[in-house]
Amino acid sequence: MPESTKTIHWVGDLDGCCRLIDQTLLPGECKEIDCTDSACMWDAIKRLAVRGAPAIGVAAAFGVILGIRGSKAGDRDAFLADLKQTTDYLASSRPTAVNLFWALDRMNRVAHAATDLDVAALKQRLFEESKAIWDEDREMCRALGRHGQTLLADGETALTHCNAGGLATADYGTALAVFFAAQEHGKTIAVFADETRPLNQGSRLTAWELQNAGIDVTVICDSMAGQVMKEGRIHKIFVGADRIAANGDTANKIGTYSVSVLAKEHGIPFYVVAPTSTFDLKSPDGDAIPIEERDASEINRGFSELNTPEGVAFYNPAFDVTPHEHVAAIVTECGIIERPDTSKILDHFRENGLLAEEGS
Amino acid sequence: MPESTKTIHWVGDLDGCCRLIDQTLLPGECKEIDCTDSACMWDAIKRLAVRGAPAIGVAAAFGVILGIRGSKAGDRDAFLADLKQTTDYLASSRPTAVNLFWALDRMNRVAHAATDLDVAALKQRLFEESKAIWDEDREMCRALGRHGQTLLADGETALTHCNAGGLATADYGTALAVFFAAQEHGKTIAVFADETRPLNQGSRLTAWELQNAGIDVTVICDSMAGQVMKEGRIHKIFVGADRIAANGDTANKIGTYSVSVLAKEHGIPFYVVAPTSTFDLKSPDGDAIPIEERDASEINRGFSELNTPEGVAFYNPAFDVTPHEHVAAIVTECGIIERPDTSKILDHFRENGLLAEEGS
Repeated sequence: MPESTKTIHWVGDLDGCCRLIDQTLLPGECKEIDCTDSACMWDAIKRLAVRGAPAIGVAAAFGVILGIRGSKAGDRDAFLADLKQTTDYLASSRPTAVNLFWALDRMNRVAHAATDLDVAALKQRLFEESKAIWDEDREMCRALGRHGQTLLADGETALTHCNAGGLATADYGTALAVFFAAQEHGKTIAVFADETRPLNQGSRLTAWELQNAGIDVTVICDSMAGQVMKEGRIHKIFVGADRIAANGDTANKIGTYSVSVLAKEHGIPFYVVAPTSTFDLKSPDGDAIPIEERDASEINRGFSELNTPEGVAFYNPAFDVTPHEHVAAIVTECGIIERPDTSKILDHFRENGLLAEEGS
Repeated sequence: MPESTKTIHWVGDLDGCCRLIDQTLLPGECKEIDCTDSACMWDAIKRLAVRGAPAIGVAAAFGVILGIRGSKAGDRDAFLADLKQTTDYLASSRPTAVNLFWALDRMNRVAHAATDLDVAALKQRLFEESKAIWDEDREMCRALGRHGQTLLADGETALTHCNAGGLATADYGTALAVFFAAQEHGKTIAVFADETRPLNQGSRLTAWELQNAGIDVTVICDSMAGQVMKEGRIHKIFVGADRIAANGDTANKIGTYSVSVLAKEHGIPFYVVAPTSTFDLKSPDGDAIPIEERDASEINRGFSELNTPEGVAFYNPAFDVTPHEHVAAIVTECGIIERPDTSKILDHFRENGLLAEEGS
């Protein structure tokens, strides 16, 4: 496992601590924080020291452990009250993060379900659950990498957009998992990373992760991707996803759609790498996915002094939707969906037992 | 004429001064400099207070006037020696700028050809020549605008990349001339301006020019152009050119090629606006045009603190080539070449008397 993407993990037993990379200091400095109480974790989530949906879920679960392991509750009910106080507190750190609530709910449910355990055993049971959440996230990343790396041959060069990397997960990411796994399989690969304006997740985070792993990485401006493809330098394209509709239309960081059009023009396979949890089967296609519009300050003041005239208008869509016709395959933790459409995606879910509620 | 793009002009008679916008202060501050001697002009060219090929040519010509108008030469030969000293001096300000040498040569040739003039008359003759250079550049811009604006209807929205604007010329630019001219024809238009990484000529200069002219302008990151086209917001695309091959393949600021691919995908007409002097008929196609590669610091330190890991690789091509098949038309000062190819471009030059040497 690449040491470079130990985004978040637990050190030691129940008396240990949660160690995480302070991502606000990247790429200038890679400093780890040892959180020993829930206030430290609350602060880390709040100020984006830990970010990315899966990583936030893991952070929340570990934050619960930090909050309740010192509970002086004499009985189960008192302990559950302490637990609720901790989860309510952690929930206030980033109220819009879906994975935060998902993880806190899961911890509460486990505690309530374990009616036969005393306080000491409950603490241990929750500790095991937090590590299970971490483990599942790692397993998901590994499975994505395992399947995805079959699509990238020794000696090939890939292009990626934004940061679908280890820094957003407990392990080595989604799209970037493909590169790490290819390297582990002994393949020599190279990666072009779009800088990914306006917030530069490509040049700041993807470049940092790949450089640390010893993978040949070259940063380009987003506007250069077409030229690099035209020069014949790119064999495959791998991106992550924020949300995938039932037909395979994929919402991801703004600019992904343009990359998919350029890939089509140059006949380069364009792959989406994302866990099945990213699919929103209730959205029939990309038109059902709303595009978040964000503040102009990300463009005209991001990482710099004001560099545009005062008062000029901006348009700053945070995401775009890539039509499934542009997608050569979607890689999930269960395998590969070639030339995805609604029928193939449903088959994939069915074959992997992910449509349990079907017919009920 | 839009007051906002008085990039460079002469104020008064031979005893007057050259007034120019200090572009190093844009868009934060629009300050004009009055150059009254050649040292001031040398400095303005050197430190890029005036930039853009046509504008540099005009600056050089006015710089010659500032240098020789005070000449104490008693006869023609002594004056020509003073003139050579001035042009040699100005030539050292930016030794790679082709238009600088073109203008200085033209001023020297005019003086040497005027064998019947005394010193006072020579000074006046050179002054007229400098104003002719300025006038020709303005005429070129106006003609580009006049022809180009016929392609943009009232109520339409255009997209442009980089700054093919007045700040690079003595008047109102090349691609941007289309927008200024459309406005003068009473059309209400809107423009999306790509910010144009890495040096942000779009967000810094194009946005400034259009905002000053009262044209509705919205800045987007380069990666957002595809999304904006997909949303149906763009009717036409207008860009400038650094060099156009005989078949219409067009070298322009990096990212232009990607815009052309996106335009093709969305069925949006893509227009190149450039004077005939931009054509390089000796290059049969775009493959003959070398792509300048520039320093990584433009990407990772441009307008900001270092925002990438130390030591990471960069690729920074300054230009790309758009194949002529992507170009709906090239607008020159002589008219419009629809669906350009080698034969149509040669016809355009022949019909406008620009192939005088043919057959000789």
